[in-house]
Amino acid sequence: MNIKSNIKTFKKTRVILFDTFGTIVDWRSSIMRAGKKIANRKNIRNIDWDSFARSWRAGYHPGMLQVQSRERPWVSIDTIHREQLDKILSSFQIDQLFTESEKTEINLLWHKLDPWPDSIPGLTRIKQKFLIGPLSNGSLILLASMAKRASIPWDFILSSDTFKAYKKDAKVYLGAIHLIGIKPSEILMVAAHNDDLKAARSHGMRTAFINRAYEYGVDQTKDFNAEEKWDLIADGIEDLATALGC
Amino acid sequence: MNIKSNIKTFKKTRVILFDTFGTIVDWRSSIMRAGKKIANRKNIRNIDWDSFARSWRAGYHPGMLQVQSRERPWVSIDTIHREQLDKILSSFQIDQLFTESEKTEINLLWHKLDPWPDSIPGLTRIKQKFLIGPLSNGSLILLASMAKRASIPWDFILSSDTFKAYKKDAKVYLGAIHLIGIKPSEILMVAAHNDDLKAARSHGMRTAFINRAYEYGVDQTKDFNAEEKWDLIADGIEDLATALGC
Repeated sequence: MNIKSNIKTFKKTRVILFDTFGTIVDWRSSIMRAGKKIANRKNIRNIDWDSFARSWRAGYHPGMLQVQSRERPWVSIDTIHREQLDKILSSFQIDQLFTESEKTEINLLWHKLDPWPDSIPGLTRIKQKFLIGPLSNGSLILLASMAKRASIPWDFILSSDTFKAYKKDAKVYLGAIHLIGIKPSEILMVAAHNDDLKAARSHGMRTAFINRAYEYGVDQTKDFNAEEKWDLIADGIEDLATALGC
Repeated sequence: MNIKSNIKTFKKTRVILFDTFGTIVDWRSSIMRAGKKIANRKNIRNIDWDSFARSWRAGYHPGMLQVQSRERPWVSIDTIHREQLDKILSSFQIDQLFTESEKTEINLLWHKLDPWPDSIPGLTRIKQKFLIGPLSNGSLILLASMAKRASIPWDFILSSDTFKAYKKDAKVYLGAIHLIGIKPSEILMVAAHNDDLKAARSHGMRTAFINRAYEYGVDQTKDFNAEEKWDLIADGIEDLATALGC
């Protein structure tokens, strides 16, 4: 699809929503780097911090699933992160090395993730033409703190706790559409995850897939490629900006 | 209160919420200026656009009251603005001069209000130290569009439609506290309206009053002064920044 035909396809687009973890920020390298720093400070050796990051993230889907399935009432992603942190500190046998307040601090690493190199330049271009915001499973305070630290130029923030639901619960997409107050076809959802786009499309949004086939490193089992004919496929947010004629 | 004692009072403050209409933006002059431009384009004479702006705003409280009293189910501020616009176009005897799409466009003037001269420089300073966002009766799309156009540097946006309620309904303040997920005493509410601060204080927030005794012009009947001992009183947002040691 060339830029001219894209501009035609997206000429009614007014708002662009972005998945955040994996699509905009590189959680794995960020947590790995931060873990190494903590290890240096604490003289901890022989921990594979890439594995630590992946193990931490591995609690994310099961944690959200308990909420989605109504097995458990609403809890924010910060609680899910903290519960999984306790588990992995224990399985990596380093839980005794941290005080409670240090654990609270470590949990905030998810508020301090670094963007992929293309994210800020791409969003800065896209923002000139469209209203932009995350539609993320992060909490409001997580997303706002992260954006502030990393200078992510959101126009607004839509978080899981805004809707008290996690993607791919319909509540999140329908809540966003209703809150923004425009037609779903005027909203473009951008994600590196096929299931997120599938849900967005089922509610009438336009869709753009970002190739981040290295997000999970050795744990990556899916999202190597666009699995449906999404409205756009791009190799990063700068590439997306170019495809949108920004 | 000097800056040193303020810094002590507000040392636990993490998030600052701002009323928007009247506190951050000057709706009256903005609507008046925009009205004059429309009049020039349409060759409309003999309309007092300051009176037009005040009449339009006069529908705001009764419109919200119908929602607050549950007399009417939730409608967004854009709907309330539009209903009042239809009334005043008629009472100013100019309703025949506009097409439906022009009326839709005129209603969007509330998305294009200009900040008071001190707002952007003040918020830019305050943002260095605190997370900042509106807690406003505006809609999300109104507040995001307004911020984008006027470069208001919010970290996040909390709108009436986030909570499906209007200030001073407790739902708005409690919803904000719950969504931000920190203690109410860590949140400072800033407004040019005593009743807004009274409600915020009743829910445990800190309070700062901004003197905008000229907001309503000749229609101003209250909020000439701080009516309680608010935690801070400032003559504008730059003055507030200074008082907070930013």
